[in-house]
Amino acid sequence: MVDLPAFVSIREVGPRDGLQNEDPIPTDAKVRLLDALSATGVRRIEAVSFVHPKAIPQMADADEVWQRAVRADGVRYSALVPNTRGAQRALAAGFTEIEVVVSASDTHNRRNVNRSTDESLDDIAELIDLLHGASARVEVIVATSFGCPYEGDVDPARVAGIVDRVVRDGADRVAFGDTTGMGTPRRVRELLTAVRDRNAQVPVLLHFHNTRGTALANLLTALELGVTEFDASVGGLGGCPYAPGASGNLATEEVVHMLQDMGIDTGVDLAAMIEAAELAEELLGKKLPSGVLRAGPRTRLTPMPS
Amino acid sequence: MVDLPAFVSIREVGPRDGLQNEDPIPTDAKVRLLDALSATGVRRIEAVSFVHPKAIPQMADADEVWQRAVRADGVRYSALVPNTRGAQRALAAGFTEIEVVVSASDTHNRRNVNRSTDESLDDIAELIDLLHGASARVEVIVATSFGCPYEGDVDPARVAGIVDRVVRDGADRVAFGDTTGMGTPRRVRELLTAVRDRNAQVPVLLHFHNTRGTALANLLTALELGVTEFDASVGGLGGCPYAPGASGNLATEEVVHMLQDMGIDTGVDLAAMIEAAELAEELLGKKLPSGVLRAGPRTRLTPMPS
Repeated sequence: MVDLPAFVSIREVGPRDGLQNEDPIPTDAKVRLLDALSATGVRRIEAVSFVHPKAIPQMADADEVWQRAVRADGVRYSALVPNTRGAQRALAAGFTEIEVVVSASDTHNRRNVNRSTDESLDDIAELIDLLHGASARVEVIVATSFGCPYEGDVDPARVAGIVDRVVRDGADRVAFGDTTGMGTPRRVRELLTAVRDRNAQVPVLLHFHNTRGTALANLLTALELGVTEFDASVGGLGGCPYAPGASGNLATEEVVHMLQDMGIDTGVDLAAMIEAAELAEELLGKKLPSGVLRAGPRTRLTPMPS
Repeated sequence: MVDLPAFVSIREVGPRDGLQNEDPIPTDAKVRLLDALSATGVRRIEAVSFVHPKAIPQMADADEVWQRAVRADGVRYSALVPNTRGAQRALAAGFTEIEVVVSASDTHNRRNVNRSTDESLDDIAELIDLLHGASARVEVIVATSFGCPYEGDVDPARVAGIVDRVVRDGADRVAFGDTTGMGTPRRVRELLTAVRDRNAQVPVLLHFHNTRGTALANLLTALELGVTEFDASVGGLGGCPYAPGASGNLATEEVVHMLQDMGIDTGVDLAAMIEAAELAEELLGKKLPSGVLRAGPRTRLTPMPS
C-alpha cells in the first residue's frame, strides 16, 4: 500500500455551499452555525458568498453574518464571489482568500451563468487581477470536473486545459468539484493524472458529493495519490438540485471519522463536529443525510445487554 | 497504483440478510424479488435462511419461497443455517452451498445465540461435518469482524484465530461481516493482513455495511488487497437494528455502479439491478437508502435545459 499523508486539511463549506442549497434560515442561525464550526478545530471555513440577493437569497445577509461571526484563531476563512461586484464586497469585508467558479462543462456553465466556459475564464482572469491587486489569494473551482449532468463524461484533458489557463492567468490554487456526484476512483485518478502531467505544482483541493455513495472511496483514492485538501459540509448540508432525494455534499464528520480511525489528523474534534451537525439539523428543522451523525462514531458503543 | 481485479463476484444477500431485517412481506413478494434478482446477471444469491419461525418470522416460509423461485442458469444459490435442524432443512431443500455464522465478539455472540464464541465454534465444527457428509460446501461468516457495538474494537488476531479454527475444522470459505458498519480502510487492511499471515489460501468474502459512509472505501481497499468477493444487498435492503435510522447493507447497485465505471466486470446488468431495487421498494412499501437508486447511475443524464 502507498503511504498516506499524516495530515489532511479540510475546508468546511457548510455555511456557504451547504446553506446556499437549503431553504433560507435567519441571520442569527447562520452566525450560530459558523461560530459552532469555528470551535471544532477545523482549519478552514468557506464562510459566505457575495452574490446578488435576487439570484441567491440564502446569502443576502452575507455581510452581516460575517461581521457578527467570531473569527477564531488558527482558522482561515474564505468567501466565494461570482463577479467584480462580489469581489469588491468580499475585499471590503476583509477576506483575503477568495473562491471563484467555472464549470468544465460548457452546457452546465451556460445554465449557471449564461456564458460559455471560455467567456467565464476571461472574466476570471480579470477577477484574479483585481483580487491580486488587493493582495487576496484566488482559488478557481472547476465544477463538473468528474462529469456533467447534461453532457455526461467530461474529458480530463479539457479540465487540465482549464487548469493551464487559470494558472497562466495567476490562480493561486485550483479545486475540482464533483458537482452532481459522478466521480468514481477511476475518474479521480484520470483527472489528477491529466492535471499533474501539465501542472504538477499548483495546489489542488477536491470537492466530492456523495450522491451515489462513492465520496469516501474517491477521497481515499485521492489520498493515495497525495492530495491532502478536501471540502466537506457539516452534516452533509446542501443538497443537489438536479437529483431530488439524493444526498449532496460529503459530510464533514464522515470524513473526519474515517481519517481519524486511519491515524490521519485533521485538527477537527469529531465530537464537536457531530454537535455542529446536530445544531445544523436544529437550525434547518430537517434531518441531514450523514451516517456518522445518525449512528454516531464507531467508538460510540451500545450499552451492554443486561 | 496497484492493479485491480478484472472481475468481482458479488453475492446478492437482499432476499435473506436484507428481508430478515425488514418487516415481513408475503411469500409471493419474496419469490418476485428473488426471481427479479436471478435475472440481473448476478452470479450468486443468498436466497433464504432456515431458522426457527418464532426467532425470525421473516423466514418462516423459506421452504415455499425456495420451492417456487426460478433457479436461473449460472447463478449459485446459498442458504444460511443456524443449527443442525436448519442444516437438515437446507440439505433437504437441495442447497449445496451453506453459510453459518459466528460472532468474533463474545458479547455479540452471546446476545445473538446465548453461547460464547468458542461454544458456537464447537457447534460449527459439527455442522461442517454434517454438511460435508452431504457433499455441501460451508462458508463460515465471522460477524463483528471490524468492531463490536458492545465491546468496541475487535482484535484482528482474534478474528485470525477464529479463521485458524474453522479452517482446521474444514470450512471451505470464510466471510467477514462488518455487522454495524465499524469498518474503515485501516481495519480492512489490518484484518486481511492478520488473516492471510496465517491462512493465505482460504477464499475470503467481505460483507460491508454503509452505516458510517465507509462501505465503498472499504471495498476499494479490499480490492487493492486482492479480494474479489463481496456481499451486497439490492437497494441497501436490511437495516441495522442497533443503529436506528442508520443505513445498513451496502446497496448492490452502488457496488456495481462504481465497479462498472472502473472497468471491473460483475456480470450484473446495472439497469436490471436498479429495477430490482425499485421492485424491492414497491414490495416493502418504503424508500431504501441507495444513492444510485435515488439519483440513477452517473450515465443517466438530465435533459438539456431549453
